[in-house]
Amino acid sequence: MKYLLILSFVGTHYDGWQVQPGLPTIQKTLQIAAETAFREPVAVTGCGRTDSGVHARAFPCTIQTQSGRMPIPPEVLPEALNRLLPGDLALQSASAVPDSFHPRYTPHIKEYEYLIYNGRRRDPFFEGRAYFFPRPLHLSRMQLAADAFCGTQDFTAFMAAGSKITDAVRTVYRTALRRDGNLVSFTVSGNGFLYNMVRIMTGTLLAVSEEKIRPEQIPDILASRDRARAGATVPAWGLYLNRVTYLTDQSTEKEESADDHGKEN
Amino acid sequence: MKYLLILSFVGTHYDGWQVQPGLPTIQKTLQIAAETAFREPVAVTGCGRTDSGVHARAFPCTIQTQSGRMPIPPEVLPEALNRLLPGDLALQSASAVPDSFHPRYTPHIKEYEYLIYNGRRRDPFFEGRAYFFPRPLHLSRMQLAADAFCGTQDFTAFMAAGSKITDAVRTVYRTALRRDGNLVSFTVSGNGFLYNMVRIMTGTLLAVSEEKIRPEQIPDILASRDRARAGATVPAWGLYLNRVTYLTDQSTEKEESADDHGKEN
Repeated sequence: MKYLLILSFVGTHYDGWQVQPGLPTIQKTLQIAAETAFREPVAVTGCGRTDSGVHARAFPCTIQTQSGRMPIPPEVLPEALNRLLPGDLALQSASAVPDSFHPRYTPHIKEYEYLIYNGRRRDPFFEGRAYFFPRPLHLSRMQLAADAFCGTQDFTAFMAAGSKITDAVRTVYRTALRRDGNLVSFTVSGNGFLYNMVRIMTGTLLAVSEEKIRPEQIPDILASRDRARAGATVPAWGLYLNRVTYLTDQSTEKEESADDHGKEN
Repeated sequence: MKYLLILSFVGTHYDGWQVQPGLPTIQKTLQIAAETAFREPVAVTGCGRTDSGVHARAFPCTIQTQSGRMPIPPEVLPEALNRLLPGDLALQSASAVPDSFHPRYTPHIKEYEYLIYNGRRRDPFFEGRAYFFPRPLHLSRMQLAADAFCGTQDFTAFMAAGSKITDAVRTVYRTALRRDGNLVSFTVSGNGFLYNMVRIMTGTLLAVSEEKIRPEQIPDILASRDRARAGATVPAWGLYLNRVTYLTDQSTEKEESADDHGKEN
C-alpha cells in the first residue's frame, strides 16, 4: 500500500510540479516534508506535471516510503504534513491505495478551469490568480466554440508548438463558460490534456469573443492540426486543476501515449 | 481641487499605509507612481492608517500636486497610474474633490470585514487572506455578542493596550456575521475605529463561540473599560477595509478626537 494525497496549492511561487535542480517545485517541497515526517526516503509521484504559476484545487499524488511501510496513519497525515508545509501548499486528504495504483496511469477524468478577471480595471486580489481581460466577453459565442472542443478528436492544433507527442487524440467530455460578477471561468474535463491545451483553448475562445475566429471555424482548426490557426496561449496564472476522478482503482500498464513526457498545461 | 482616489490593495507585502523610512508602504508606493505620472511632487493623504498585512477593497485617499494643478484628467487617472503600480495595488476610480475635502476628517462611515477560514484543514488560497480557525463556530451566539457592540459606547476595552487615545467613544451602526461555505465573515460599520478595535472584537466573538465569554457579558466588558477582559487580537491578515461612505463633501475643521494619531486596526 502507499499514500494517495489530494493537494491544493497556489502555484505562484513554484516552478511547477516536477523536481528541477535548484528550483522550488511542489514535488520537492512535499518530498522534503514527507521525509522529515517519516524519517526515511520517499518517492513522490504526481498525476501529471503543471507549469510554473499554475494552481491546483485538488491535485492527486502518491507517496511511497523506501521501506514500503506507512509510518503515519493516512487519516492523521494531513495534520502532520500541513504543519511542515509552507502556507501556499496543503493536503486536503490522504488515504491508502494499492501499490498498483498510479496517479497518472490509472484511467481518470481531469477537470481544469481557466479564470479570467473581466472587470474594467484590474483587481489586486486576482493578481496571479486570474488573467485580466478588460474588454467585454461574449459568453454565448464563446460557448458555441467551446462546444466544438467536445468529443474524441486530434488536438494537435491546440498543443504547444515543438511538442514531441505523436498521438494527440484526446477526449473532451464537457466544456462550460460561466460568469460570476467580473469573473469568467472556462471549465473543461477530459481524459487527458496536451501541453498548453487548456491555455490555447482559452486563448482561442478569447479570439472568438473578439471576432477574430468564428465558432464555426473550430472544427476546421482542429482538422488542420495547425497550431498557428488556433488562438494565443494565455498565461499560466489563470489555470487551475480542479479535480481528477479515477475511473478504477486498478493500475493499467499501458502508458496512454505519455503527454509530452508527462507535461500538460 | 484635488484628486480623490479609491484604492484596492492586498496588504501582505506592505508595512501598512503610512510612510515609514526604509519600509514598503502603500502611501509611498502610490506617491512614487503619482510623481512619476505628474512629474512633480505630490502629497498623498489617506482615510486613516492600516497595519501591516491589512487589506482594502476600497480605501479612499487624496492626491494633491505641489502646483495645485491636476495634470491628468481624473477619469483617465486609474489607467495611467495602474500601469505604474505593482500588481497588488490598484486604483478603482478617481474623481476631483474640493480642497476642503479631507479623506479622514470629512465625516464618514467606515465598513470593515474580518474573514475567518473555518474549514477543517487550511486552504492555501486563503493564506494571508483569512484567519484559519478550524473548530466549529457558533454564529448565532456570536451574533448575539456582536449585537451588543452596536450603539454609541466607550470602546476602551476593545482598544490596543498602550493606546494614547483618551476619548474612546465611537458609534457602531451595524454588525453582521455570515457564513459562505468555509468562510465566515464579521462585518462592522461605524463612525470611527480605535487601534485594533475590529481585531479585538473578532477575537472576542471567537471567545464567545468557544464559550469562554457569554454574549450577555459584552455590556459589562464595555463598561469595565478593561482591555484584559475582551478577547485576543486576531491577526491583521484577515482584516479588510470594505468601504468608506462620506456623509458630506464639506470638510470639517474639527479633528474628531484623532484615532491614536490616526492609527486604526
